[in-house]
Amino acid sequence: MTLTGKMLIGRQAIAGTGEAIRAIDPSTDQALEPTYLGGDHSHVEQACTLAWSAFDSYRETSLEQRAGFLETIAEQIEALGDALIDRATAETGLPRARIQGERGRTCHQLRTFARVVRAGEWLDVRVDPAQPQRQPLPRADLRQRQIAVGPVAVFGASNFPLAFSVAGGDTASALAAGCPVLVKAHSAHPGTSELVGRAVIRAVQQHNLPEGVFSLLFGSGREMGIALVEDPRIKAVGFTGSRSGGIALTKAAQARNEPIPVYAEMSSINPVFLFGAALHARGEALAQGFVASLTQGAGQFCTNPGLLIARQGEALDRFTVAATRQLKDSPAQTMLTPGIHQAYAAGVAALANNPRARLLGQGLAGNGANQGQAHLFSARAEDFLADAALQAEVFGATSLIVQCADDAEVHQVAEHLEGQLTATLHLDEGDLPAARALLPALERKAGRILVNGWPTGVEVCDAMVHGGPFPATSDARATSVGTAAILRFLRPVCYQDFPDSLLPEALVHANPLHLRRLVDGQREA
Amino acid sequence: MTLTGKMLIGRQAIAGTGEAIRAIDPSTDQALEPTYLGGDHSHVEQACTLAWSAFDSYRETSLEQRAGFLETIAEQIEALGDALIDRATAETGLPRARIQGERGRTCHQLRTFARVVRAGEWLDVRVDPAQPQRQPLPRADLRQRQIAVGPVAVFGASNFPLAFSVAGGDTASALAAGCPVLVKAHSAHPGTSELVGRAVIRAVQQHNLPEGVFSLLFGSGREMGIALVEDPRIKAVGFTGSRSGGIALTKAAQARNEPIPVYAEMSSINPVFLFGAALHARGEALAQGFVASLTQGAGQFCTNPGLLIARQGEALDRFTVAATRQLKDSPAQTMLTPGIHQAYAAGVAALANNPRARLLGQGLAGNGANQGQAHLFSARAEDFLADAALQAEVFGATSLIVQCADDAEVHQVAEHLEGQLTATLHLDEGDLPAARALLPALERKAGRILVNGWPTGVEVCDAMVHGGPFPATSDARATSVGTAAILRFLRPVCYQDFPDSLLPEALVHANPLHLRRLVDGQREA
Repeated sequence: MTLTGKMLIGRQAIAGTGEAIRAIDPSTDQALEPTYLGGDHSHVEQACTLAWSAFDSYRETSLEQRAGFLETIAEQIEALGDALIDRATAETGLPRARIQGERGRTCHQLRTFARVVRAGEWLDVRVDPAQPQRQPLPRADLRQRQIAVGPVAVFGASNFPLAFSVAGGDTASALAAGCPVLVKAHSAHPGTSELVGRAVIRAVQQHNLPEGVFSLLFGSGREMGIALVEDPRIKAVGFTGSRSGGIALTKAAQARNEPIPVYAEMSSINPVFLFGAALHARGEALAQGFVASLTQGAGQFCTNPGLLIARQGEALDRFTVAATRQLKDSPAQTMLTPGIHQAYAAGVAALANNPRARLLGQGLAGNGANQGQAHLFSARAEDFLADAALQAEVFGATSLIVQCADDAEVHQVAEHLEGQLTATLHLDEGDLPAARALLPALERKAGRILVNGWPTGVEVCDAMVHGGPFPATSDARATSVGTAAILRFLRPVCYQDFPDSLLPEALVHANPLHLRRLVDGQREA
Repeated sequence: MTLTGKMLIGRQAIAGTGEAIRAIDPSTDQALEPTYLGGDHSHVEQACTLAWSAFDSYRETSLEQRAGFLETIAEQIEALGDALIDRATAETGLPRARIQGERGRTCHQLRTFARVVRAGEWLDVRVDPAQPQRQPLPRADLRQRQIAVGPVAVFGASNFPLAFSVAGGDTASALAAGCPVLVKAHSAHPGTSELVGRAVIRAVQQHNLPEGVFSLLFGSGREMGIALVEDPRIKAVGFTGSRSGGIALTKAAQARNEPIPVYAEMSSINPVFLFGAALHARGEALAQGFVASLTQGAGQFCTNPGLLIARQGEALDRFTVAATRQLKDSPAQTMLTPGIHQAYAAGVAALANNPRARLLGQGLAGNGANQGQAHLFSARAEDFLADAALQAEVFGATSLIVQCADDAEVHQVAEHLEGQLTATLHLDEGDLPAARALLPALERKAGRILVNGWPTGVEVCDAMVHGGPFPATSDARATSVGTAAILRFLRPVCYQDFPDSLLPEALVHANPLHLRRLVDGQREA
């Protein structure tokens, strides 16, 4: 499959006119062919016009049709075969097995949303039948369903070139909700983006859907992204990336004549609390698990454990020695891009130069380009509480152990934390009272709380929450992973006294979709 | 019952230190006793401190306990008896029967949320059990529930002194979700607010809830409101009022270090589409229904029909004559406040002076203070499309008939509209094709769509949507009336591999709350 370097705007492949975007193999710093040219406002205009004209018909496709479309996207991605794996590996420096696993996750995610679409629970159908005899006033017939909010702009992430990118979770959930999707490809993996974008467009064609259902745009810098968010036909935004990037998009969305929701997943340091009994009983095993989670994928996960919190003492000292020893042998890994590597190095240097942080140890230095070397620091709780810099995310395999004088200080640190994607508790039976006391604070701070696990690894399922209070995300009511992600792109509409022939299929009296509706306050069996 | 003129901050009645706030009987322009003094930042601080300390325990009260609390609030409001009716009538100029009806609605609303709390569907429990044998990686046990977002600031509306005020829909739904509530009373009905606030506090005491669950603050101008929204312990805002007020609160909420959601219900002109066959067959009856809806409560409803849209011609002319005649005999009514009356008069004058609008007729002029006189204008569609001023809400009994040359112009007007709370279709069998063609646009524009009814009258039930795209509200994903309003004050949390003894009751394996959980993708029967 030959890459063309072109944007995909509906049915057309269109060359940009702007700045050159070249993928770089981060393991060699070699630029990869072809060159992609960034788009301009006219391309945003063209893609939004198509998306808008596709919206009304796409959002009313049958559940079966839409589910089939999602499944075909998965098939088309699989049909790309090794070409996709080769290109994604070259563009990201990630191991081949990881990319293969991520492809599996991406296709599973699309098929999971197909299952969700067919089940139709997201329609949240509510029926309050007419009560013409009611006193003092009759009640009208009222029926509610959820409809798609409108075309959605999706911003691919650098660290998951498949699962959080062109046909990743944001795209899958928006398409499932009935929203056309406009993706701004991440400039770090344009070739992967083109391949996947073509797979989506083949699925659009195979299902005879209007071409505006999907477009793929290129553009470095923030100009095209802001132009997309500012277009009045865009009605919601999905983003995974930096805090500054997410905030910039959110501000642009709020400054519109008609503000729109932005679902930005931004920044999390994922605190891990090590309780006394667990630390005492299995500090060595915890250290192993910790270093494995810390260094997985060069630490480039949103849920990377960037903070360990424990009471100081002998058990923590033993853990620290074990973790430091473990870390010493961990190989450096190629980071995703030269820019990410530079930012990581700067973050590590800032900690190394911070008098409140102490370097405990580091992993092996790498040979070659963009090698991320793992680091472990420690700080006293009172210093952590006094210095906001110690709470900043360092994107990569670096973590900070916060040593607390007592349980009260553990609580203080927990309450001091900003919003997080995850919080983790390592505990044994004897730690349950302390854990129970800490739990309310963690529920207020995090979208997911784990016991005796590690936060890297985010299951695509119904119960997952990959979200959390600001700055973990821009909207704590939402998750960007798991089936509840579809709820972000829906809004309710109530139909009053409609004749059956004018009602949407989900609401007609005969209930042909066999939904378990809420009728007169009762859930149907 | 003697009014004290004091704020209610948890258990304490506290006199303000700021500006004097006096209710005015709008029918006489007489000030009512007592004088309320506005609070300052120290009162906001005190109320937020109490709310924050109440939050963790209140959000974990049992479903039964919380439902009982809501029911007791209703009982305590009913126990206020005529004192409440007298005071609310005096403060608003609304007819006694209307206030009695609104009390019934308010108490029904509280009891409806009690039913919703008990049913527990809002917990949205999702369980994905562990799969230790899964290849290539085992799956953890994942459980999701919804938890309360935190203390909520509620801003009472002027036009519903009970149902959208101190113990109205925002308060009821936030308390149902497990959020402490801080109400800023509307300065137009401070006595009504104090009475209802005391009823809530008696319910708090009767159920031995922490005092911070509810506080009532006074303050004119925007200073106290902004201070409330800016307090870091406030996690969401409910507001019903003007577009400028809602936008000011939204901007303050977004400028915080941690932005929070604002649910502002602001501005809607509620377009009514009159189709040809219906207009031809029953223009006279439509005119009667229209004028009744337009003038109800002096037109002071968010869902007042401020815009009629139809094809020009003989049928519309006959309707217009009938409506104008009907209007001529409609008595002036006392408006809520001198300020609202002035704004109404200014809005009417602006239309009267707009060369693109033509005055068709008016109702009877009133005797006495603050009398709102009904008005009916018309404009050609091309003028309506050209002049944004014709789309501005005039809060009161004034409406504008937009005459369209053909169906295409009807569509153009529909697409030109801003977001609305409601859109209404009057149609007969023969109009169905035209209505069907217009429906997609209306679904994009409005939260509720009615057939052959009038938009005033908002049922409190499961299927209601009192919401809609901006500027009808600040968040089209939400409704402020009906049971789905509880969803505004919740966020999801996922619990991974928790021992049963550490899980919240809603998530433990035995399912003691008998919830119909989503387990492994299947809804329990």
